[in-house]
Amino acid sequence: MNRPSLCIHPLYLSVPTVVELVRRRGVARCIDAIARNIEADFLRWVDFDKSARVANHSRDGVIELMPVSDDTAYSFKYVNGHPKNTALGLSTVMAFGVLADVATGTPLLLSELTLTTALRTAATSALAARALARGESRVMALIGNGAQSEFQALAFQHLVGIDTVRLFDMDSAATAKLMANLAGSGLKVQACASTREAVRGADIVTTVTADKTYATIITPDMLEPGMHINAVGGDCPGKTELAAAVLEAAKVFVEFAPQSRVEGDIQQMPADFAVTELWEVLSGLRTGRDSNEQVTVFDSVGFALEDYSALRFMYEAAQQDGVGERLALIPALADPKNLFGVLSREGCSVAAPAPTLALPQVDERSDRLQSAS
Amino acid sequence: MNRPSLCIHPLYLSVPTVVELVRRRGVARCIDAIARNIEADFLRWVDFDKSARVANHSRDGVIELMPVSDDTAYSFKYVNGHPKNTALGLSTVMAFGVLADVATGTPLLLSELTLTTALRTAATSALAARALARGESRVMALIGNGAQSEFQALAFQHLVGIDTVRLFDMDSAATAKLMANLAGSGLKVQACASTREAVRGADIVTTVTADKTYATIITPDMLEPGMHINAVGGDCPGKTELAAAVLEAAKVFVEFAPQSRVEGDIQQMPADFAVTELWEVLSGLRTGRDSNEQVTVFDSVGFALEDYSALRFMYEAAQQDGVGERLALIPALADPKNLFGVLSREGCSVAAPAPTLALPQVDERSDRLQSAS
Repeated sequence: MNRPSLCIHPLYLSVPTVVELVRRRGVARCIDAIARNIEADFLRWVDFDKSARVANHSRDGVIELMPVSDDTAYSFKYVNGHPKNTALGLSTVMAFGVLADVATGTPLLLSELTLTTALRTAATSALAARALARGESRVMALIGNGAQSEFQALAFQHLVGIDTVRLFDMDSAATAKLMANLAGSGLKVQACASTREAVRGADIVTTVTADKTYATIITPDMLEPGMHINAVGGDCPGKTELAAAVLEAAKVFVEFAPQSRVEGDIQQMPADFAVTELWEVLSGLRTGRDSNEQVTVFDSVGFALEDYSALRFMYEAAQQDGVGERLALIPALADPKNLFGVLSREGCSVAAPAPTLALPQVDERSDRLQSAS
Repeated sequence: MNRPSLCIHPLYLSVPTVVELVRRRGVARCIDAIARNIEADFLRWVDFDKSARVANHSRDGVIELMPVSDDTAYSFKYVNGHPKNTALGLSTVMAFGVLADVATGTPLLLSELTLTTALRTAATSALAARALARGESRVMALIGNGAQSEFQALAFQHLVGIDTVRLFDMDSAATAKLMANLAGSGLKVQACASTREAVRGADIVTTVTADKTYATIITPDMLEPGMHINAVGGDCPGKTELAAAVLEAAKVFVEFAPQSRVEGDIQQMPADFAVTELWEVLSGLRTGRDSNEQVTVFDSVGFALEDYSALRFMYEAAQQDGVGERLALIPALADPKNLFGVLSREGCSVAAPAPTLALPQVDERSDRLQSAS
């Protein structure tokens, strides 16, 4: 009963802490580092215990939990999707997540993931486009100019080589906001009067709209040979962005097929509709685009493994910077069988930080950035 | 773009905060209040979006997420189960949880749940025993004297009327610890040399052991007419406490059958093995025990709704006491579509507490306690 108190105070990264961490590195460098983690983790796809996320749907939205683990680390994300929230001055998507030690179940990190989700979604989109879009892609249409759009634009600029973005949103104030935020980025930015106008002549089309409805943002008549469509916003049952005929006309790639068939744009298609998982392309098991004329679609819904990759970036970056707070979230027991003892004055011992878990190394050098961030 | 910053700083209840909250009320009163919440929530069973918990299994344990929601509130618990942790000076079970607003997805509360899980498990056990055990039950065998055992003993003393507990654990130090912690409780406490000795003559048998193995703590020859078995420790695949013949000889009650058939002692039984869900008994839809001679088994695994009930107790008790901290977990955006703006110095605005969600009233009067706590 006189064992030393091993203590479980997970590291806590608040929004201000993550903001500072990202500002210190720059958005593009963070997206690049997360994209490397995602690529490295997708390349060991079979090592992970994967499951479709657990969704609780309600009238105006959904709350989801997204767990994943390998032999070393476990992560989950809490994330909501409530399109009407903007009218209340609240974000459509709010998220936080946890990284834990698989060997003991100890939570190691609690982090904000609202900002981080935008980074990792952009990182995943750029990673997919690098594997699927034509190499000479320079012009991107960006349909939906809300919370995710700046991150998508910067990711495609720095990781894919896009130099021009053509914008459309039904809310012109959102487009104005995006243009203001991209001022000084080096991107050529063009506001367009319609989706059709924005898409015309684009090498890549990114759709990142938020309505929880069966929308048809992109119709087959807008397709041009060799186009790559990065469909980000169709990501839960009843929420799509592409006409079924667009999917029929394209080669379609997804993250994790069992989840995408429920949540992605392919929810409109038969259960045996042919898709290729991105990890298969990254690992060379299957081909990406088959020709320069083929239309490719990345039907992205967001997969738990991407959050795992992002959380381990945040965990290691915070340790490098020596930032973050500690939460007294788990009792520190001198005798683990004496939980009741925490209720005595003596039992409530002072606790030290949780042990640090060694994760695969992150290389933060920016040699893959297309330009300085 | 000049909307006021609505802010999302969920309430945070650390271990020390929950310890103080429980000490202020007393353990028995907290268990009683949580049991009332559980009963009230079980009586509106059909209102909840329920699912079996999501488990990630590894060599030495499991990490689980347990979500549940109604039209108003959403909750989930993170909980691990690592039997070997005690050898490392860590708890077998560590937990925390979140309560959120269904209408907007806003997280309202992050709370420790290690201590709280022990309270809610004991509350559920006592609630079930009050519905299923013989009314004159006074003697309880308590097999497994670890972290949960004091809470079980006090719950059965104050909510069920038990006056004598007969203890056994393979680790005699655990039994000594339990006896020390129960000194002054008013319970007659007897240490026994074996499970068989502890069980003999008991009205209620509570098994709360931690080994992740197919154990047979209770065998059919130990059964006595009218006994109620409160089987708490058999709660994940490969972890059982009762011989199959015990289940065959008894009327078996569970929390949520789809989860219990995977995790409970009934995982040993055929898929069509007859069980009754506790809420059906509480609501009068089905009978509990059919005679004073019948053996009843509550094959408890722990269900997400019990954590929901416990979290709303903690949420309201903390508000009554005016305790808890605030976490800057979700960005507060003047313009919800301008997430990127948090990266500017101006965007990182000072945030206020999350809005308070009105939940069904908790009545903390202790008129159902069998004696003062």
